[in-house]
Amino acid sequence: MERTLALKTVKKVGETVTLCGWVHARRNMGKIVFLDMRDRSGIVQVVIVSKELDSVSHGALPEIRTEFVLQIEGIVNMRKKANDALPTGSVEILATKITILNTSKTPPFEIENEDRQANEELRLKYRYLDLRHTRMARNMRLRHTLVKEVRDFLCAQDFIEIETSLLTKGTPEGAREYIIPSRIYPGTFYVLPQSPQQFKQLLMVAGFERYFQIAKCFRDEDQRGDRQPEFTQIDVEMSFVEQEDVMNLMEAMMIKTIQKVSPEKKILATPFPRLTYQAAMERYGTDRPDLRVNKDDPHELAFCWVVDFPFFEKTEEGGWMFTHNPFSAPQPAYKEQLLTKENIGGIIAAQYDMVCNGYEVGGGGIRNHTPEALRAVFEIMGLSSDIINERFGHILEALEYGTPPHGGIALGLDRLVAILANEPNIREVIAFPKTGDARDPLMGAPSSMPQKALDDVHIKLKN
Amino acid sequence: MERTLALKTVKKVGETVTLCGWVHARRNMGKIVFLDMRDRSGIVQVVIVSKELDSVSHGALPEIRTEFVLQIEGIVNMRKKANDALPTGSVEILATKITILNTSKTPPFEIENEDRQANEELRLKYRYLDLRHTRMARNMRLRHTLVKEVRDFLCAQDFIEIETSLLTKGTPEGAREYIIPSRIYPGTFYVLPQSPQQFKQLLMVAGFERYFQIAKCFRDEDQRGDRQPEFTQIDVEMSFVEQEDVMNLMEAMMIKTIQKVSPEKKILATPFPRLTYQAAMERYGTDRPDLRVNKDDPHELAFCWVVDFPFFEKTEEGGWMFTHNPFSAPQPAYKEQLLTKENIGGIIAAQYDMVCNGYEVGGGGIRNHTPEALRAVFEIMGLSSDIINERFGHILEALEYGTPPHGGIALGLDRLVAILANEPNIREVIAFPKTGDARDPLMGAPSSMPQKALDDVHIKLKN
Repeated sequence: MERTLALKTVKKVGETVTLCGWVHARRNMGKIVFLDMRDRSGIVQVVIVSKELDSVSHGALPEIRTEFVLQIEGIVNMRKKANDALPTGSVEILATKITILNTSKTPPFEIENEDRQANEELRLKYRYLDLRHTRMARNMRLRHTLVKEVRDFLCAQDFIEIETSLLTKGTPEGAREYIIPSRIYPGTFYVLPQSPQQFKQLLMVAGFERYFQIAKCFRDEDQRGDRQPEFTQIDVEMSFVEQEDVMNLMEAMMIKTIQKVSPEKKILATPFPRLTYQAAMERYGTDRPDLRVNKDDPHELAFCWVVDFPFFEKTEEGGWMFTHNPFSAPQPAYKEQLLTKENIGGIIAAQYDMVCNGYEVGGGGIRNHTPEALRAVFEIMGLSSDIINERFGHILEALEYGTPPHGGIALGLDRLVAILANEPNIREVIAFPKTGDARDPLMGAPSSMPQKALDDVHIKLKN
Repeated sequence: MERTLALKTVKKVGETVTLCGWVHARRNMGKIVFLDMRDRSGIVQVVIVSKELDSVSHGALPEIRTEFVLQIEGIVNMRKKANDALPTGSVEILATKITILNTSKTPPFEIENEDRQANEELRLKYRYLDLRHTRMARNMRLRHTLVKEVRDFLCAQDFIEIETSLLTKGTPEGAREYIIPSRIYPGTFYVLPQSPQQFKQLLMVAGFERYFQIAKCFRDEDQRGDRQPEFTQIDVEMSFVEQEDVMNLMEAMMIKTIQKVSPEKKILATPFPRLTYQAAMERYGTDRPDLRVNKDDPHELAFCWVVDFPFFEKTEEGGWMFTHNPFSAPQPAYKEQLLTKENIGGIIAAQYDMVCNGYEVGGGGIRNHTPEALRAVFEIMGLSSDIINERFGHILEALEYGTPPHGGIALGLDRLVAILANEPNIREVIAFPKTGDARDPLMGAPSSMPQKALDDVHIKLKN
């Protein structure tokens, strides 16, 4: 028999339907039992009157409890008194047959409990129950819809999505990368990428011109705040563009996508205000200013761009370090200064950060597309010629084979969804997050391995 | 100035346009130079007559070689003699201004060379040049379009895409998993998933009912044939379904998607023929039969389903091992035999493989959704109660909390694209693949790590 979703029953008054789903709540009212039945579409009320049931169903009835999985046949009736709080509140299903598809133990916490911070460890251990929470299910759907809209937007703009490698090579900065010992080549390691930065630039060299990827990234940082060891970026790169082209397109994408997936949100100002780094620091004391007018309004979104970052800053040792990214280009007016290494502290990068409600939700730049310019960055950082060639030889070489001018951006998907969902923590918008200290209480990761697994990849534990 | 793509010039006869792209070919014909200019849309012919150029462009002209990146302003003229082989063959651009955006060294191999097997190592080292090959660029676009169509199909069917963890726990079979030492918890490891199998089942427990993911999977196998350490699955799971529901939906998805992305392909038989495992072995001696009638026809696609696999097979030691997957359910008629452990060798699994042109392109099953049934599988395999609880405790526990009947499938995206692209090897449809022996000659992975990186994660090399 064709199954009907809860939400669809409102259009089937007078018809016999088959529901499949979970017992969201059970209320015994003398000779009548009410079940709120939940499925992916929502909740609908089922009325059970013993005499309407066949004998098998009748026998099953006393056993049924919250979170049992049932198949229910019944007739859709108009309710005498509609429940306006429920999209299906105009109808109820008079059950004629009930089949228990699966039982359920009593969950270890009340699923719809709103005190979500209290027992986070337990909620993560039983994540499959926590995800039944209305808010969590809604967050997952919001995330899905947001990504779908972003993809549709970019595809309509002639972008191509390309998957890049996750088993790759370490970057020179190197710290905070997850390493994977190779079985075939003793003593060597793959590294999980902190971002697809180099790959996306190589795709520009390859001529794809407009690339994007919803990309998993990995960073083994101490988990302060709500960082996660693995997180997701909307990763974009374009050829034959200038800073304004990337910014304008990304701004249009955000506005259109948010209007579609979160129409209740009010974007405070469009076009997004643009602040120089200097102005932001002077006025707000931060390069991630929160420009909301009314911080109590949960629907207010204050986007802005922060631009004109200094390319380099002095290190404690008196040398120079890039402020954002060695692959950034200087703004056109500073190109000569980069090559001649003059006025280093004054060079302004073609770098832009997208900020929303005080969070940096994205950052990007126009890249150096000539080997001379990229090499100058490394030289200013004080790297020797040997080190530069060893660590960056492959990308410097790539720039010698007809690399187009290009630039891009990476948006933090988890943070964007969290802002739209009014969640304080990105763990609430990730299906299977780690704890604040990088554990997965559900699967029990990380865990010890049998000796053979270590032997296979030619490593041993250090004590 | 607004840039015009090569392909769009045919609609701009008489207009001045700006092209950006690569020199695909240069031909000097006395006083006239012809350039084939390539961008992401295709190729268009540019005609250079010295007297039409400004002086800067004129000075640049001698320098220009293949794979240089140029910006060219010019007027679109009808060609006297159209080139029907080119979509832009009716027009040519008479250049008025040429700007060299970047130079190019001579590539280390001829990009459009058709002898692609000869120098694969070199092509992988310079993958960003190899991807400029017309066929490689087309393969990447085919892959992108196929995935887009699959996503659109599943979204229209009310599926939700959910990302699952890549830093997870090892499975008991354990062999051939990539391991990642934890920095925070000395002596412990994360594991890269061989598939999202357990997560997708937990998402069914969570009530999402219709999940999919374009999922990266990892397997550290000896790279026989054209396996890759990382590969991509179209991963699907559904609740409240039977075997036929999953098969019918996936079949409809394949037919619709292929018609859209590869309209030149002829699917030999729809509905896809269904063969039992026994019939396939008897008739073809394989459970991946190649049912093509004319194997010389590059456009023939012969899909079939293979069903009715035995659940268990005898091990050399005289015990029992699952043939496909411990999470599969038996077909309904064999449910009782599983629970009572009778006629073990005769139990038929609710398991289905999708086969195309002799390749297994997908495999799936209806899952055991009660802890008793799943536990019976492990017991038949001879696992002790302690081992079962230690290794599978979390999933057995999840099945106790209202798990719906569910099943799904995983399709091998790389293989599907390779078949549609008529490529013999999945490396030709992966942007940045590894070699047959798991190396990345472009990035130089795997590579040795500084001692500090090993110290940080509490391991040392074994000699």
